[in-house]
Amino acid sequence: MTLPPVPPTDLNLPQRTLLGPGPSNVHPRVLRAMSLPCIGHLDPAFLEVMNGTIDLLRYVFQTENRLVMPVSGTGSAGMEAALVNFIEPGDTVIVGVSGLFGERMADIVGRAGGRLVRVDAPWGEPLDPDEVATALAAHPGAKALTVVHAETSTGVLQPLEPLARLAREHGCLFIVDTVTSLAGVPVKVDEWGLDVVYSGTQKCLSCPPGLAPLTAGERAVEVLKARKTKVQSWYLDLPMLVSYWGTERFYHHTAPVNMVFALYEALRLIAEEGLEARFARHRVNGEALLAGVRAMGLEPFAREGYRVPMLLSVKVPDGVNDLEVRKDLLGRANVEIGGGLGPTKGRIWRIGLLGHSAQRENVLLVLAALEAALGRQGFKAGPGAGLAAAEAVYRAEMATAPPAGASGPKAGGR
Amino acid sequence: MTLPPVPPTDLNLPQRTLLGPGPSNVHPRVLRAMSLPCIGHLDPAFLEVMNGTIDLLRYVFQTENRLVMPVSGTGSAGMEAALVNFIEPGDTVIVGVSGLFGERMADIVGRAGGRLVRVDAPWGEPLDPDEVATALAAHPGAKALTVVHAETSTGVLQPLEPLARLAREHGCLFIVDTVTSLAGVPVKVDEWGLDVVYSGTQKCLSCPPGLAPLTAGERAVEVLKARKTKVQSWYLDLPMLVSYWGTERFYHHTAPVNMVFALYEALRLIAEEGLEARFARHRVNGEALLAGVRAMGLEPFAREGYRVPMLLSVKVPDGVNDLEVRKDLLGRANVEIGGGLGPTKGRIWRIGLLGHSAQRENVLLVLAALEAALGRQGFKAGPGAGLAAAEAVYRAEMATAPPAGASGPKAGGR
Repeated sequence: MTLPPVPPTDLNLPQRTLLGPGPSNVHPRVLRAMSLPCIGHLDPAFLEVMNGTIDLLRYVFQTENRLVMPVSGTGSAGMEAALVNFIEPGDTVIVGVSGLFGERMADIVGRAGGRLVRVDAPWGEPLDPDEVATALAAHPGAKALTVVHAETSTGVLQPLEPLARLAREHGCLFIVDTVTSLAGVPVKVDEWGLDVVYSGTQKCLSCPPGLAPLTAGERAVEVLKARKTKVQSWYLDLPMLVSYWGTERFYHHTAPVNMVFALYEALRLIAEEGLEARFARHRVNGEALLAGVRAMGLEPFAREGYRVPMLLSVKVPDGVNDLEVRKDLLGRANVEIGGGLGPTKGRIWRIGLLGHSAQRENVLLVLAALEAALGRQGFKAGPGAGLAAAEAVYRAEMATAPPAGASGPKAGGR
Repeated sequence: MTLPPVPPTDLNLPQRTLLGPGPSNVHPRVLRAMSLPCIGHLDPAFLEVMNGTIDLLRYVFQTENRLVMPVSGTGSAGMEAALVNFIEPGDTVIVGVSGLFGERMADIVGRAGGRLVRVDAPWGEPLDPDEVATALAAHPGAKALTVVHAETSTGVLQPLEPLARLAREHGCLFIVDTVTSLAGVPVKVDEWGLDVVYSGTQKCLSCPPGLAPLTAGERAVEVLKARKTKVQSWYLDLPMLVSYWGTERFYHHTAPVNMVFALYEALRLIAEEGLEARFARHRVNGEALLAGVRAMGLEPFAREGYRVPMLLSVKVPDGVNDLEVRKDLLGRANVEIGGGLGPTKGRIWRIGLLGHSAQRENVLLVLAALEAALGRQGFKAGPGAGLAAAEAVYRAEMATAPPAGASGPKAGGR
């Protein structure tokens, strides 16, 4: 038994400004909470942290649902949990597909033995509610309608209320992916009537990846109780998970204790800032970024009126090499932005201002670094035009904003 | 939208000595690595950390397998991944069940559509290889034989080599749970011929819970390639995970980046100490603990000759209340030990000396605290008898041990 070459004494990582589609920058308070000494997953002190985490998640999901918990995996584990628990073999499921994450939902529905009915929209466009209505009418008795709120692959924000009403009218569950939207734009679980909603920690919650907050309302819980078959996944079996996260505290699996510490702290930061202030911060910084890239001569990809405020998809200009620009940003400015996926690979960039990353200094940095990188590719953005346009947005905002401290909870250390 | 009552300013957690069946104490270097600023899951710097992690996992698994990775979930996610990827509906799977984690495997085999054949042993006993041989002979064409190496619920260590030979003779895969054993006792994946092996990070690897290292050999990879059906889980789909962790770096899901930092550092500590020294440390401390509890008049639960050296199951004496003793240890000494599960609930304790927890000071602490707690329950252990017996083991070990630094890699900061 020979020793492997032991890697160097210490992890020596670059410090990045994370402006891709996630993970986002993590607040130092969250990193500090995560590195507290581990305690047992059934320790009374940990059960208190679990309770606090659930309370705070209810606030962020804007729900009174009893069933609220972080699933012990990344956002995709949340997606799988949200689907396999509510679908039984043979159930018809209508899946809205307008990007990669809708495709992923469709894939999982098939693996769960569901009868898949797709409603497609081109990448960059939202789903058409009329087409969803047609699909629902054509498949009476469908078990669920599933959509992605903020399609991370395209930057499109799907309005949820019309679809929630349709699902309710047709008596089927409405299952929604809010991986990129939660805590960045409103997700009103109760008011809008969303039955099953999941997210991921590494986007607008600004916690490292590793947990998937999930909530389900009473209609969904009834469906769960009425299942005739076992949930295909033991690890993601919601009734068993509820026994652990709920009042019974029945051992299921060992929760990722330190990740829960991190999530708890990330959620506290959100509560301190207040959701409305947080949404406004995402909106303003997103507007400044959009104004900046437009002034540089770039075009947004997602359709106007349906753009995720804090995840800008922008077309790679003709003659510019996607990968070279991203390498330039990373190598010369330590700025990460995202590229396209699937059909948009090489064709778009995705610039995220998620959670703690949504800061004026980051907008200025990415615009300045992008202008330089594009220049090296022979693309001439008007010098300083992007920065000037972004600044104009901030100035206009300052002119209309109420005086600091005039309303709402304080901005909590930001 | 009203704010929830914001929890107190900071997480204020007790500092525990973790001597249950996991999680174990985490080395400060691991906590520090975990709290490094997050970077992107496709960042070249993160890909290097992934490569280093895989190299180090190969060392710990004692394997040259190409397929080695941490699954993005806790040990139970590793179990599910190890089963659902290799089982297709209708496959016969022989499951050794001698405790809770064997039961869990049997449950998952059923959910995956496998035809379950159980070989049972009473809790506290190992499986009988003859009974396994009989089951294999009675079910020619069985797809897999699965067992738990160190049954966390009973403290029994199952010898693997005879079963590996049987599986090979009958042409079926041998799938092994090493959640509690890996890095505490030898797990020789290649030498013993183990086809699929998974573990968890929060036991002898002494990393917080959240990842499940997994490896599969060539025979297993062939089975994977020959699948006729999709893997039922998208999140745990090994061929897709291999594309991300392997050379292609094809995006699958967002890896729990900071958890990987932590695992990398935990594995480096193991490589610095050296596996043989680490096994010896677990053995000596385990012997000292066993001698101590015996001298106090307590009896081990698992059968002699088949005990996990670093997880002692011990019977709760007549007239002593299990829960009161554990509360006493936790409340008065900040020491966590485990209780029984299922049929042994209230009947046994499980005292773990896993990974970084396997230290002389922890053995002395738990014996002293246990003597006091038992005394408050009216159980009279000879005063100081446990400590004296443990000390005798350490003295004997010192007398026979080679002088420090005489052989093997250094003990790496312990």
